[in-house]
Amino acid sequence: MTHQPDPLSDAHVAQSLHLFRSQPPLVHCMTNDVVQTFTANVLLALQASPAMVIDAEEAAQFSAIADALLINVGTLTHERRDAMHTAVTAAVAANTPWTLDPVAVGALRLRSDFCQQLLNAAPAAIRGNASEILALAQHEQGGRGVDSLHQAEAALTAARQLAQKYHSIVAVTGEVDYVTDGARTLRVTGGSALMTRVVGTGCALSAVVAAFTSLPGDRLVNVASACRVMALAGEQATQRASGPGSFVPAFLDALWTLEPEAER
Amino acid sequence: MTHQPDPLSDAHVAQSLHLFRSQPPLVHCMTNDVVQTFTANVLLALQASPAMVIDAEEAAQFSAIADALLINVGTLTHERRDAMHTAVTAAVAANTPWTLDPVAVGALRLRSDFCQQLLNAAPAAIRGNASEILALAQHEQGGRGVDSLHQAEAALTAARQLAQKYHSIVAVTGEVDYVTDGARTLRVTGGSALMTRVVGTGCALSAVVAAFTSLPGDRLVNVASACRVMALAGEQATQRASGPGSFVPAFLDALWTLEPEAER
Amino acid sequence: MTHQPDPLSDAHVAQSLHLFRSQPPLVHCMTNDVVQTFTANVLLALQASPAMVIDAEEAAQFSAIADALLINVGTLTHERRDAMHTAVTAAVAANTPWTLDPVAVGALRLRSDFCQQLLNAAPAAIRGNASEILALAQHEQGGRGVDSLHQAEAALTAARQLAQKYHSIVAVTGEVDYVTDGARTLRVTGGSALMTRVVGTGCALSAVVAAFTSLPGDRLVNVASACRVMALAGEQATQRASGPGSFVPAFLDALWTLEPEAER
Repeated sequence: MTHQPDPLSDAHVAQSLHLFRSQPPLVHCMTNDVVQTFTANVLLALQASPAMVIDAEEAAQFSAIADALLINVGTLTHERRDAMHTAVTAAVAANTPWTLDPVAVGALRLRSDFCQQLLNAAPAAIRGNASEILALAQHEQGGRGVDSLHQAEAALTAARQLAQKYHSIVAVTGEVDYVTDGARTLRVTGGSALMTRVVGTGCALSAVVAAFTSLPGDRLVNVASACRVMALAGEQATQRASGPGSFVPAFLDALWTLEPEAER
Repeated sequence: MTHQPDPLSDAHVAQSLHLFRSQPPLVHCMTNDVVQTFTANVLLALQASPAMVIDAEEAAQFSAIADALLINVGTLTHERRDAMHTAVTAAVAANTPWTLDPVAVGALRLRSDFCQQLLNAAPAAIRGNASEILALAQHEQGGRGVDSLHQAEAALTAARQLAQKYHSIVAVTGEVDYVTDGARTLRVTGGSALMTRVVGTGCALSAVVAAFTSLPGDRLVNVASACRVMALAGEQATQRASGPGSFVPAFLDALWTLEPEAER
Repeated sequence: MTHQPDPLSDAHVAQSLHLFRSQPPLVHCMTNDVVQTFTANVLLALQASPAMVIDAEEAAQFSAIADALLINVGTLTHERRDAMHTAVTAAVAANTPWTLDPVAVGALRLRSDFCQQLLNAAPAAIRGNASEILALAQHEQGGRGVDSLHQAEAALTAARQLAQKYHSIVAVTGEVDYVTDGARTLRVTGGSALMTRVVGTGCALSAVVAAFTSLPGDRLVNVASACRVMALAGEQATQRASGPGSFVPAFLDALWTLEPEAER
């Protein structure tokens, strides 16, 4: 039953990124306080337009205008939960694809209940680490905070189940990323350990995933391409950086100039 | 009736910046979540003191102590609207000049209604892109988010009307900035396209405009000087940057060392 | 009665940092909006795990799991005050050490009342500038915002009183830092003036202080070591930086590679 993951081809990544840059999407980000600036700068470096609109009424108006919506529960409050719920409902009504980043789901109740509830609102994509995807699929108690206690491989079965049940694309990211629609699975390599020493690389990846769900064509390939774009930029930035501080500007510069076809 | 915009002289910029650095203001910023850090660092690099106080009661206390107040509606909520309203009222009572950044006004209802309401509280300055200034002046439906759909030139008439009606200084910023008090208009050139690929350059400019409204002398010249200081630093940073990532540290360094008189 | 401050030895700093890196703590940060990203990146550069959980219910759950809790009142609201209070109560019940950063206490009522109230909940450490420590100890009206109007030396007496009364470690930081448990006082030198031109260096120091309170051994020495680690990184970064912009990446890189024993 379980198919082997296929590698994502460089040609597909180049094609998706080219498409992305030729029609940069407007991405409505309802994300956590800690990563908003970095998330916006990542999207801007890719030539997309980020917009952080958070009031319930305004968010509902805006998610209908935007090309994609990101929901990240990192610094959830009851008020934000309600605003996010309203925005998701409006996005679904307007056919705006929306992406879930279930930060630290499993460990904390408010966000765990909310993420389970949101699964029924047809997310276009879900992006999490192995712990989070396992918790989401199995109602399992997850890790302490955002660090992944499980390897991405172990969460692959859970990801496939989640993707099938909710007709979504699920990306389990870690040292290797797996992106699945339940039937097909793509394997994405790259990135660097230094990326885990900079806050927001995972959250910004979810925003890029959200942005790539707005592209026409094969959404599985597009979401996997989003993962590969971030991994490639991470590799380039790590080569130029002296630590996690100089990584950040180098990473944004790499996204700005990235040419996936020239990589190999 | 309409006067031609005059260029802003380098000598005026140098004079305003010298005055600014010799008595650096304390700037109370009630701004959006995405740009708070960058805004604070921009003010600090110019030797000013930023303070982000957001609770209604504390904000009212603080805006009476501060030298200037910034209101930026980028991530408005009902609660923040009320706190901002209280702060503006206290600022007006204490003769603290306050500046409005009407982010994405026109497109979204809560902020549009609030900005219209705030216009009656005598803003010392208003800083927006062409879409925002048009929306504010004409109750027109504006752009999608923060990108400007109109050229700054097209909004100049709207800016003059707004400035006259509300006795304010209005800055319409874009590739070229126009700063007007309704009768006189100054033209500010400079900056770079890379500045639009970094989140918060416009919002931070509004904070710097707010800071410069606290200076004695001709407020029109002072606000235009704030625009020119940011444009100059943007040009210098663009020369040193490899992309939007390395732009940020280079920009703050440029603000720190800026000597407008030595430029030409 | 008053003992002379002793210098902190390099060997102690190296020992504390080695211990820290060998068992990096999970630090629950309830801090202000302006400094969250920088605070997280500082902790990550030191190999610790930051987590910003802010909902009252989730924060209570999380502060019992975390190794340390930071409470920073920089952008306090009534809602955040209540969530922080709940988190502190849970932390105390779970024996999680917690640290108070009383930003701008004295000048503003909501935070002043709240900080006085929190003193009775047995903070493991308190970190502030001279104005803040004086205001906290003496219910004195403090400075305008976060700038220190008093020299650290002048607040030393207040710090000793505070430490004795509340059985806490108090760090008064400025050009020279003093760290006291009421009986013993350690003197920490280093740092640079450029650190005051970057937002969040003080707030991030408080997060690092919180993280170091989770270490076994002499808490006075550990808290003083936290101050010295930041001062050392600040010195190294200042040597490499061209201004406050390039300071930030250089500072995080310095924390990442810091070897206190190799310093002299």
